[in-house]
Amino acid sequence: MRATVMYGAEDVRVETVPDASLIEPTDALVRVTHACVCGSDLWPYRTMEHSETGRRMGHEAIGVVEAIGDDVHTVKRGDVVIMPFAYSDGACVFCQEGLQTSCIHGGFFGTGGAADGAQAEAVRVPQADGTLFVLPADKDDALLPSLLTLSDVMGTGHHAAVTARVGPGKSVAVVGDGAVGLCGVIAARRLGAERIILLGRHPDRIALAKTFGATDIVSERGDEAVERVRELTGGFGAHSVLECVGLEQSMRAAISIARPGGAVGRVGVPQDETMPASQLAFYNNVTVSGGPAPVRAYIQELLPDILEGRIEPGRVFDRTVCLDGIPDGYRAMNDREAIKVMIEF
Amino acid sequence: MRATVMYGAEDVRVETVPDASLIEPTDALVRVTHACVCGSDLWPYRTMEHSETGRRMGHEAIGVVEAIGDDVHTVKRGDVVIMPFAYSDGACVFCQEGLQTSCIHGGFFGTGGAADGAQAEAVRVPQADGTLFVLPADKDDALLPSLLTLSDVMGTGHHAAVTARVGPGKSVAVVGDGAVGLCGVIAARRLGAERIILLGRHPDRIALAKTFGATDIVSERGDEAVERVRELTGGFGAHSVLECVGLEQSMRAAISIARPGGAVGRVGVPQDETMPASQLAFYNNVTVSGGPAPVRAYIQELLPDILEGRIEPGRVFDRTVCLDGIPDGYRAMNDREAIKVMIEF
Repeated sequence: MRATVMYGAEDVRVETVPDASLIEPTDALVRVTHACVCGSDLWPYRTMEHSETGRRMGHEAIGVVEAIGDDVHTVKRGDVVIMPFAYSDGACVFCQEGLQTSCIHGGFFGTGGAADGAQAEAVRVPQADGTLFVLPADKDDALLPSLLTLSDVMGTGHHAAVTARVGPGKSVAVVGDGAVGLCGVIAARRLGAERIILLGRHPDRIALAKTFGATDIVSERGDEAVERVRELTGGFGAHSVLECVGLEQSMRAAISIARPGGAVGRVGVPQDETMPASQLAFYNNVTVSGGPAPVRAYIQELLPDILEGRIEPGRVFDRTVCLDGIPDGYRAMNDREAIKVMIEF
Repeated sequence: MRATVMYGAEDVRVETVPDASLIEPTDALVRVTHACVCGSDLWPYRTMEHSETGRRMGHEAIGVVEAIGDDVHTVKRGDVVIMPFAYSDGACVFCQEGLQTSCIHGGFFGTGGAADGAQAEAVRVPQADGTLFVLPADKDDALLPSLLTLSDVMGTGHHAAVTARVGPGKSVAVVGDGAVGLCGVIAARRLGAERIILLGRHPDRIALAKTFGATDIVSERGDEAVERVRELTGGFGAHSVLECVGLEQSMRAAISIARPGGAVGRVGVPQDETMPASQLAFYNNVTVSGGPAPVRAYIQELLPDILEGRIEPGRVFDRTVCLDGIPDGYRAMNDREAIKVMIEF
């Protein structure tokens, strides 16, 4: 089969690799129909050292179950399924608590671990019963892009909002205007936020954020951005801040614009071992929460809003490529030509 | 009057200073009957550069109101009052939310700001109506040490437990065996924790922690301590971790022993601008919360348990000095001869 392999920074290739196949009795084999390039794929795209063997990429997919192992019971051949970016058994103590990203038998797709990448014609899905979510059979194709976001970015934006304690009447600031930040705007609106401030500068993203529910845009940088958010929030800062980038300066901004007693929900993968502005967070009693989103846990909650058209996170996809177009999809996202790239097989 | 002035590291003097007096109409003048040396006073005691003018010390007190300004209405001359370590107007949006340490008109005692230190014969208390808590007139003197802890350490230990989301059935680890950590044990027990693990090595503190409700003691250091806590918690770590030190290594330990999805409530004043183990906290979805405790908000909740003898946080005082004994009180706490020093006037 053909699959995406990254060999180093800016070196993404689509190659013929051994066919994906069942290995464990708890596996399913999924024929991928839709996948994505993720903002987090851009970290290795920018920094990965050359590798002779390469790294299989991709962790978001919708597909059709082609085969199942003997111990798979809730998923069957022919099911249309969402594959979240993490696999999980659905049974361990953490899965039961709704933290599937810490599953005792779990892991992440496309990290070179037990599971291969999803930017491929097919993918082996470990722990299929716990991992895969079967979509309603009468799905409307027009909704597929939005359903695909449940594999990562919509669930991740929701996690940022939940861990930042967004609720009715709250003021919310979103740091990061990528697909996750934009989904964070949707999530904040959905959870009842009164004021939603997006920090961003790209006209196309700003326009989309406004249709998603952003009430204010802050395009300044650094201290000026902090000052502007304070002005917009009565001088105090935002109750809830969604950190959707992961860099030192974005995390510093997030903590700086949080209101005393407020919370930062971070979902941008932190690129540094230390967190900045720790003392500021402390003195203001700002809670820092978040992490890899247990998107599997959120599908059930978010799905009806997509099926009934109340939210349209699929609008973050502003470019669609075929398998051979994947390397250029990476380039386009990295150059910020595209917000998020969908791959159709 | 006589008061405590720090001139540099290990240079604490009791000197004659101008009498405390009313300045603002919202002030009260309090004759101090009981004060303390705080663990946080030891940071400047160890590191303060020499100052010609010195810094007035002390932020925890019980005393008798001697005079009030024209705008003070809820406190009167002769009242026995608790003075929390922060002053606050009791009326602003943050006070109303129970975060008095972020009061818009507030500040901290003994920091060289608007309010003088409480390790003195008298202290001017700004925002007296919001700051002071009037004790029941029929107070029992034997309870005074415990009541005095409501000015800081008991409220701070409680804040660590609250922000670490301690609750019935939870496993709790307490990093730091000082007075705050020991009060954190009391708070964790009071909030229903099932297992309370104290990280400490001093026999006297361990003994006290056990009487306060600690179920397990971990005396190892570093990675071995982390391993031991994991063993005690089914391999996963503690639901709630109370960080009561503020150093890089203690914060790293706190995050390392938290269970995925757990929370660290930090009340040790962070000595570094950056927080360690940020990526570990992220990948495990560990929430980091806490800050200066709004002890004023907690007095009402904790007071009945002291008055009715259910908790005895005053047992953290294992040495009592008079005014002239304060410099030696600092030394004794710094040398870990004493857990916490009470000053009786």
